[in-house]
Amino acid sequence: MDRIELRAIGRVVSPLTDPGSAPRQGDEGAPPATIAIDSDYLAGLHGVEAGDALIVLTWLDRADREVLSVHPRGDPAREPRGVFATRSPDRPNPIGLHRVEVEAIEGGTIRVRDLEAVDGTPVLDLKPVLSADVGER
Amino acid sequence: MDRIELRAIGRVVSPLTDPGSAPRQGDEGAPPATIAIDSDYLAGLHGVEAGDALIVLTWLDRADREVLSVHPRGDPAREPRGVFATRSPDRPNPIGLHRVEVEAIEGGTIRVRDLEAVDGTPVLDLKPVLSADVGER
Repeated sequence: MDRIELRAIGRVVSPLTDPGSAPRQGDEGAPPATIAIDSDYLAGLHGVEAGDALIVLTWLDRADREVLSVHPRGDPAREPRGVFATRSPDRPNPIGLHRVEVEAIEGGTIRVRDLEAVDGTPVLDLKPVLSADVGER
Repeated sequence: MDRIELRAIGRVVSPLTDPGSAPRQGDEGAPPATIAIDSDYLAGLHGVEAGDALIVLTWLDRADREVLSVHPRGDPAREPRGVFATRSPDRPNPIGLHRVEVEAIEGGTIRVRDLEAVDGTPVLDLKPVLSADVGER
């Protein structure tokens, strides 16, 4: 395969700094956070509005990319599973997927609910949630 | 930012070969397709089973990464929108997000429903769907 290289379009700004203390999923009590979009990519935000449900893709830059098997939730008492059957950050391509709600947007700053990523996490993409994503037909 | 490089973990195998004829979302009539996982990553599949709802991340290798604004559904009569307010494949990091259902899995071959990607598309990641992804709490 040709080399695939990603570009950060922005960063997470959050009071969460320690991955160990971050909730594992955004609906488990993430504090308010913002996404700071780089000025080069501002034109891509046209049409994103308060109240929107977005999927945020991030690059989990502290993850271990060599791991293929994990104990669910890090609990050694649980049977190991393949990483593709889990949401472990450790996986060959550690792309984080976060469903958030836009509370406000001003310039390149998007205030969101339910984003559990730690401060400084590179942001790769924002997508509106579609009915197909939630299994509706 | 440090350079971020992705690794394909497999490929889409599908009768769809022309991106123009592919449905825009998997629930709009995608034919049955399979995901062929590379032998290096087989251990990551342990625990993935028929009936599972998965999120498949792909690399949309024919996309235009310089585009920040598009006409929704390619219709020039519609107001242009920023790519982050759309699901256009053209965007700075063209990562495809597909919700599929596993019909069968045998070795590294996963037969799925509702995968609209064209034949040969690189696969980056598989994740189980969580209640948080569909907005349940």
